[in-house]
Amino acid sequence: MMAAAASWNTKHNLFLLANDRTLSNNSLSFLFGGSWLHSLCCTRPAKLSMKVSAATLGMGTTKLSSSACPIVDVDLGDRSYPIYIGSGLLSHSDLLQRHIHGRRVLVVTNTTVASLYLDKVVSALTDGNPNVTVENVILPDGEKYKDMDTLMKVFDKAIESGLDRLCTFVALGGGVIGDMCGYAASSFLRGVNFIQIPTTVMAQVDSAVGGKTGINHRLGKNLIGAFYQPQCVIIDTDTLNTLPDRELVSGLAEVVKYGLIKDALFFEWQEKNMQALISRDPDAFAYAIKRSCENKAEVVSQDEKERGLRAIGNLGHTFGHAIETSCGYGHWLHGEAVAAGMVMAVDMSYRLGWIDVSIVERVSNILKQAKLPTTPPKMMTVDMFKSAMVVDKKVANGVLRLVLLKGPLGSCIFTGDYDRKALDETLHAFCKS
Amino acid sequence: MMAAAASWNTKHNLFLLANDRTLSNNSLSFLFGGSWLHSLCCTRPAKLSMKVSAATLGMGTTKLSSSACPIVDVDLGDRSYPIYIGSGLLSHSDLLQRHIHGRRVLVVTNTTVASLYLDKVVSALTDGNPNVTVENVILPDGEKYKDMDTLMKVFDKAIESGLDRLCTFVALGGGVIGDMCGYAASSFLRGVNFIQIPTTVMAQVDSAVGGKTGINHRLGKNLIGAFYQPQCVIIDTDTLNTLPDRELVSGLAEVVKYGLIKDALFFEWQEKNMQALISRDPDAFAYAIKRSCENKAEVVSQDEKERGLRAIGNLGHTFGHAIETSCGYGHWLHGEAVAAGMVMAVDMSYRLGWIDVSIVERVSNILKQAKLPTTPPKMMTVDMFKSAMVVDKKVANGVLRLVLLKGPLGSCIFTGDYDRKALDETLHAFCKS
Ligand SMILES: NC(=O)c1ccc[n+]([C@@H]2O[C@H](COP(=O)([O-])OP(=O)(O)OC[C@H]3O[C@@H](n4cnc5c(N)ncnc54)[C@H](O)[C@@H]3O)[C@@H](O)[C@H]2O)c1
Ligand SMILES: NC(=O)c1ccc[n+]([C@@H]2O[C@H](COP(=O)([O-])OP(=O)(O)OC[C@H]3O[C@@H](n4cnc5c(N)ncnc54)[C@H](O)[C@@H]3O)[C@@H](O)[C@H]2O)c1
Ligand SMILES: [Zn+2]
Ligand SMILES: [Zn+2]
Repeated sequence: MMAAAASWNTKHNLFLLANDRTLSNNSLSFLFGGSWLHSLCCTRPAKLSMKVSAATLGMGTTKLSSSACPIVDVDLGDRSYPIYIGSGLLSHSDLLQRHIHGRRVLVVTNTTVASLYLDKVVSALTDGNPNVTVENVILPDGEKYKDMDTLMKVFDKAIESGLDRLCTFVALGGGVIGDMCGYAASSFLRGVNFIQIPTTVMAQVDSAVGGKTGINHRLGKNLIGAFYQPQCVIIDTDTLNTLPDRELVSGLAEVVKYGLIKDALFFEWQEKNMQALISRDPDAFAYAIKRSCENKAEVVSQDEKERGLRAIGNLGHTFGHAIETSCGYGHWLHGEAVAAGMVMAVDMSYRLGWIDVSIVERVSNILKQAKLPTTPPKMMTVDMFKSAMVVDKKVANGVLRLVLLKGPLGSCIFTGDYDRKALDETLHAFCKS
Repeated sequence: MMAAAASWNTKHNLFLLANDRTLSNNSLSFLFGGSWLHSLCCTRPAKLSMKVSAATLGMGTTKLSSSACPIVDVDLGDRSYPIYIGSGLLSHSDLLQRHIHGRRVLVVTNTTVASLYLDKVVSALTDGNPNVTVENVILPDGEKYKDMDTLMKVFDKAIESGLDRLCTFVALGGGVIGDMCGYAASSFLRGVNFIQIPTTVMAQVDSAVGGKTGINHRLGKNLIGAFYQPQCVIIDTDTLNTLPDRELVSGLAEVVKYGLIKDALFFEWQEKNMQALISRDPDAFAYAIKRSCENKAEVVSQDEKERGLRAIGNLGHTFGHAIETSCGYGHWLHGEAVAAGMVMAVDMSYRLGWIDVSIVERVSNILKQAKLPTTPPKMMTVDMFKSAMVVDKKVANGVLRLVLLKGPLGSCIFTGDYDRKALDETLHAFCKS
């Protein structure tokens, strides 16, 4: 009823038979003009490139100043979007308002993150922009709430607030919030605009980029969801200052993953800089996040819907998801499970004769440096792995496909064509029974 | 665990780094070959055309024999798909099996339709094809079950059965089943193949075509969902033989809609053939279904995601959804609510001076012939309409956009640019308070 008033008092009805984006952006483009971007951000790097010069790498951490704002593009045709990375971005009204569609915003966050950053984000969204009203929905914190009941709270809030198709959902939080908010945005009125503001390492280096959204089912991780791309990703590296160590380190598992699957130089950089990362060196972090986003953006732009190539981002995840599901969601963090899962995938690759023993050792060493687990929890049995792995999204016609390393450092393969004996041996090597 | 066995006993692991469709169709294309289509169906009409010759129309019902199988194409680039229309199609194993991906099928249906057609469909899916296993999930019958709890039953069944990403969901039923099964298919493992087998007039002429899927929220119809296209639509007109009269007639409201929004010749044909339709003349029905599908396919192929043009398919629906939501889902059938809603939209168009009074009379007459309601239920008040219309998906930035008739028969406009007084007058004219 309160929403009714707003709608029915509108004086100027607008004629619209064009793309919604036209309507929603009219006022914003008037305010900000075309050259806005340059005044905010340092330099926009040319098209993302996979080459990192050895000189840069030799310098230890890179010389990115923490006030810089590099942009990584996710190239997906007319659904392309920028990833902004920098310090203090949460306070940049211009940046936050630039990607809002419509006049109504719903910030989706959780109890922990709301108390830290919600006010700041709401201020940045509304500062100097009286036309925008911001609602929020604060979900309980935890992987175990990444479910349909919690998702319904987002829909309830959006509908009770009378949000329309030109509204914008903003995900403010870690991977759990990003995945749920994105899925809600994909389904609310069959799809509304959304923005990712990731606040964990995990979300900044991986989950906020690429449009995989969804929720868990009691029988398996992320089994219900959608591919749905955000309008932009805003990474304020300052938010990591409040992140607990265990969460910070969990995200590093995905950083290590990029090195192993496709970026040997990045892996070597990590070997030299892991100490800087776990002691929260801001420059090292800025570089690790940017390089991770570039790697992810490249894979996503080549294979948005994971028909093939994109699956390599799942190194260690089939084993890892089995751990997460079997232990009860949230007991092992996603990155911790992935770390142990990567060690198992690397072990299996070695048993298949596909990689040199030195890679096995380097993977184990770097994860230990990061203080990540290198074995699954003791309670896991071979049967627990097997029954959980069967519902993995990568099973096709009954064949379990895995990401395995093959060849020199930085090369992998996604395949169902492997000797089952190696898989059995790996499972038995890592489980007591 | 039972699923585990199937997966872990597989001997031949397959290498797959290509499109899933390649893998899943290998065996089928081997079985059926290329010229299969011609042996099953009469003629494949050339590219759908909007012109129906006056001669054909003059003949009363068309001369389509009921054993014929016309195909209407929904042209959406690499997501294009055929709509097969004909008598006895449910028994055509070849046809049903042609569009299955993978070896696992989940038929989603309801208690009423299951007892009538489930066995037949399962036989057709499995006949001569021992590689395919078919699961089913039988939902409770009714619009009031088009909700998240019921949707979860589909996910539970799919996951408990160990279905993988190469499975196929089959929607067997009316619009409620089609909308729910389609949404489930869009979200299960972030999207699996699905097939529409509509068994009501409503679903055959409208809801099964075009990829709008979703569920209701207690505050509004279809507020949660996705655009997700099926692999094909199989319309067996024989299924209408068991459909109750009230349901049959409900679907005719959408048929009338196509005439009004874009197909004057079709409207004139309906004026001559409404009697044949309500007395279930199979030839008249085959023609009405085909012509409706052609109209819908044309609109959908021009504007899949309803950025503009496609909205014209919502003539009468903003008023109609308000009726459905306010009365409690299922008390008024969707088509009944749309019929009353169309009369209101036409009334408002006339008040705006946009159409001739003769159109107002012809709309009222044809709906009365069809025994459809031409006024909303007596309990509806102006305020009930207003508060329900505010959450309509067509509201943008607080402006309620409506589909209204403008110009000669068969012309309409989707706009928020109208005199609010006309809307108020219409609401007051149709409500006591
Ligand atoms: N969509 C994808 O592509 C993708 C990729 C990787 C992971 N994921 C998903 O992401 C989830 C894991 O994400 P996560 O590791 O970010 O977990 P999370 O979202 O649960 O966040 C971890 C914890 O940190 C807290 N937190 C978040 N930001 C904080 C901050 N700045 N300061 C203090 N505390 C903060 C959270 O409240 C939570 O307690 C899993 O569900 C995983 O499946 C998705
Ligand atoms: N997605 C779209 O584009 C779209 C378009 C129009 C309508 N819809 C939706 O479709 C729904 C209405 O569809 P509907 O009118 O088919 O209702 P429905 O699905 O509830 O079916 C009507 C009744 O007929 C029964 N039934 C179905 N087939 C039968 C048969 N062959 N013989 C006997 N009984 C049979 C059903 O069990 C039900 O009781 C609404 O939810 C509406 O929102 C969606
Ligand atoms: Zn991950
Ligand atoms: Zn309808």
